[in-house]
Amino acid sequence: MENIKSYVTNNKERFIHELIELLKIPSISADSAYSQDVLNTADAVKDALEKAGCTAVEICETPGYPIVYGEKIINPKLPTVLVYGHYDVQPADPINLWTSPPFEPVIKVTDKHPEGAIFARGACDDKGQMYMHVKALEYMTVNNELPCNVKFMIEGEEEIGSSSLAWFVERNQEKLANDVILISDTGMISNSQPSITTGLRGLSYVEVEVTGPNRDLHSGLYGGAVANPINILTKMIASLHDENNHITIPGFYDKVEELSLEERAEMAKAPFSLENYKDALDIEDVYGEQGYTTNERNSIRPTLDVNGIWGGYTGEGAKTVIASKAYAKISMRLVPNQDWKEITELFKNHFESIAPKAVKVKVTPHHGGQGYVTPIDNIGYQAANKAYTETFGIPAIPQRSGGSIPIVALFEKELKSKTILMGFGLDSDAIHSPNEHFGVFNYLKGIETIPLFYKYFAELHS
Amino acid sequence: MENIKSYVTNNKERFIHELIELLKIPSISADSAYSQDVLNTADAVKDALEKAGCTAVEICETPGYPIVYGEKIINPKLPTVLVYGHYDVQPADPINLWTSPPFEPVIKVTDKHPEGAIFARGACDDKGQMYMHVKALEYMTVNNELPCNVKFMIEGEEEIGSSSLAWFVERNQEKLANDVILISDTGMISNSQPSITTGLRGLSYVEVEVTGPNRDLHSGLYGGAVANPINILTKMIASLHDENNHITIPGFYDKVEELSLEERAEMAKAPFSLENYKDALDIEDVYGEQGYTTNERNSIRPTLDVNGIWGGYTGEGAKTVIASKAYAKISMRLVPNQDWKEITELFKNHFESIAPKAVKVKVTPHHGGQGYVTPIDNIGYQAANKAYTETFGIPAIPQRSGGSIPIVALFEKELKSKTILMGFGLDSDAIHSPNEHFGVFNYLKGIETIPLFYKYFAELHS
Repeated sequence: MENIKSYVTNNKERFIHELIELLKIPSISADSAYSQDVLNTADAVKDALEKAGCTAVEICETPGYPIVYGEKIINPKLPTVLVYGHYDVQPADPINLWTSPPFEPVIKVTDKHPEGAIFARGACDDKGQMYMHVKALEYMTVNNELPCNVKFMIEGEEEIGSSSLAWFVERNQEKLANDVILISDTGMISNSQPSITTGLRGLSYVEVEVTGPNRDLHSGLYGGAVANPINILTKMIASLHDENNHITIPGFYDKVEELSLEERAEMAKAPFSLENYKDALDIEDVYGEQGYTTNERNSIRPTLDVNGIWGGYTGEGAKTVIASKAYAKISMRLVPNQDWKEITELFKNHFESIAPKAVKVKVTPHHGGQGYVTPIDNIGYQAANKAYTETFGIPAIPQRSGGSIPIVALFEKELKSKTILMGFGLDSDAIHSPNEHFGVFNYLKGIETIPLFYKYFAELHS
Repeated sequence: MENIKSYVTNNKERFIHELIELLKIPSISADSAYSQDVLNTADAVKDALEKAGCTAVEICETPGYPIVYGEKIINPKLPTVLVYGHYDVQPADPINLWTSPPFEPVIKVTDKHPEGAIFARGACDDKGQMYMHVKALEYMTVNNELPCNVKFMIEGEEEIGSSSLAWFVERNQEKLANDVILISDTGMISNSQPSITTGLRGLSYVEVEVTGPNRDLHSGLYGGAVANPINILTKMIASLHDENNHITIPGFYDKVEELSLEERAEMAKAPFSLENYKDALDIEDVYGEQGYTTNERNSIRPTLDVNGIWGGYTGEGAKTVIASKAYAKISMRLVPNQDWKEITELFKNHFESIAPKAVKVKVTPHHGGQGYVTPIDNIGYQAANKAYTETFGIPAIPQRSGGSIPIVALFEKELKSKTILMGFGLDSDAIHSPNEHFGVFNYLKGIETIPLFYKYFAELHS
């Protein structure tokens, strides 16, 4: 694959042009007004996969938007890479904050992208990152350098919860059989420091309701004599963390994977400025579990946050009321090995147990999902790292993300294979926000790096 | 005053009829649609005072609704009683919960009022209780038994904050000079157990705002690493009470009046069923400061209650957000000797001091008022107790109310005299609620008891 660099350089204008054409279609899955555009995008992806060398490309019908499937099987005895991506995009609102129309892509220079970035909804998430894989395949088939089998599964409902994808995966385990899953739908640290997302957190989201007296009471006549459900709720929530900001729910940490000092040291290599972090959020100090750094707190450690709270009088001025009820929405981010259903149960039991007799408590689970981790000794990780090292000149840093991508846990469960998250976007690319963009450097670097992943994966697999 | 009983019996039908006529006028001060009715009610009160024997009755203009003033000075050397009441009423909504129209008074029998009760807005609060004083004066002037001077000051803005009353009192200290102030705008324990309200709590009402990051954040990417203002707010509020439910603000209890064991024993004589109290509120247990009974907790002890709390996502479903800000409205009921401005300052300083560096805190005082207490060795109290003892056959029980009536502290400050709260309503009379009513027994018993207050007050004063 010596000529991948020159191939990308020679085809750069065409690669950009093709992506821009794809970005012009407003494939907003959340808004049914755009349903024909979503379907047209699926067709465009099918064409692109065929042109890049896939055989047996199909538009697979689902209960929702179709999944575009394509494959190139060169030898059943060789390993198979399954590429996942999505062709739908987020809505563009608030539209008035865009500096250029979201579906009229333009290239503009930014501080972080001196070589220019393509501004358009979906540029980074995920049309641009997905299309890197199509162009990488083109390079390998045109040059007859594909070292293993490849399958593509590109869905159209990622931004609305991937429910048809779950339906499809459950029904097509054989068709989707693979040795590793490759996804570019995350980010990396910077254009000079590649990184690989090795973990995602799970989630348990619950709603709690505390009931005191059977009606709102006058706080003068009853204040001090009955349990005020808001005061009680604050006390109960406050008690969920101890003075070191450890979570106090019994059993909560039992299955938490403790990272080795080596892994933590590896993570700590990621460039990070606490001052910049605080400045960006306008906070005087960070806050979190004792014994862990900021980057550990939001990635390898589980958390408990109140996402919403309400009760009593919240209008203008003053009302001297003791509310009958108080509510909160609480979510816990979980780390690999914590089971979200078990944690939800632990939370419910504990929260009910700490309520004083003077109130009634109801805990309603909303939803949840499992965390995920790719061990760095996995050959998929190693292949990706070798690829990055070759194209960027330095090794990638493994990074845990604090967020949750439920489909990754689904893939592991249904397809029994590990996922490698090779992201090429930057945090500053404004995905889900106005003025989303994707660096030209990043796009081309992705196309250059991906074939090397195939090469090293095939080598390490044999 | 031997014939007061028979005078009431002989004039019963007329007394009820006159009150019913007054109740027909919808004097809702909060709703400007009724402003002419409010003014008409002032005129009706003026006429009633004149007919009852007052001289120099005037409609005193104020920046708001007028104050009806009347007096009967029989001898400047004798003591003077100042009667305060109000002729305005609360709005009637929710109107559909009334079983008869709020301004078409009818007499209906209830469990607590086997002799019938007058159902109408204002029946108890305060037209009915105010009119008892007018009819008591009538008895004393008709029978030439008025033992001292009397002044009436009946306002029309009590239900909307009495701001014109404060304006009027500050400007008419000489006109309003008196030896004791008499008000019937509270309740008593039951028709067989009279009580006198000897204390009212003060109030300090504040709003707090906790700011974390400068914008709402994704709870996956930032959760665990930055201070969540809702979590912090719950922690700060929870810390305001210790494990015995004492308030932890330094200096908060410094000036709290500690009642003697005798006074507490006297209070404890009030009939009270904890089971009935819990049943009525549908709670399994009461809750409050250790070392005090329910009736002490809501009357002689200061409290701190959250009246409202809000922050983050409070709509349907789930949103994984860390809010930038969280808010609460917090009020403290204060007992005599606690200064509300000082307490507000103590709260503010303490609340700001307990905030971790990771958040910013703002405390905004809303309003407040002083507490009030009438010592039971005051001759006004003793006169009232002798009057009750004579008409009910048993002594009244002194009772602290948990509520606040800021005008009473105002009277003490501006007019330098104590207020005696001779209430004849019952807790079950539904003031401020649909189906407000006032027992015929209570109305007539009030008219019978009040002249005896004058008699004993004049005797004890000399």
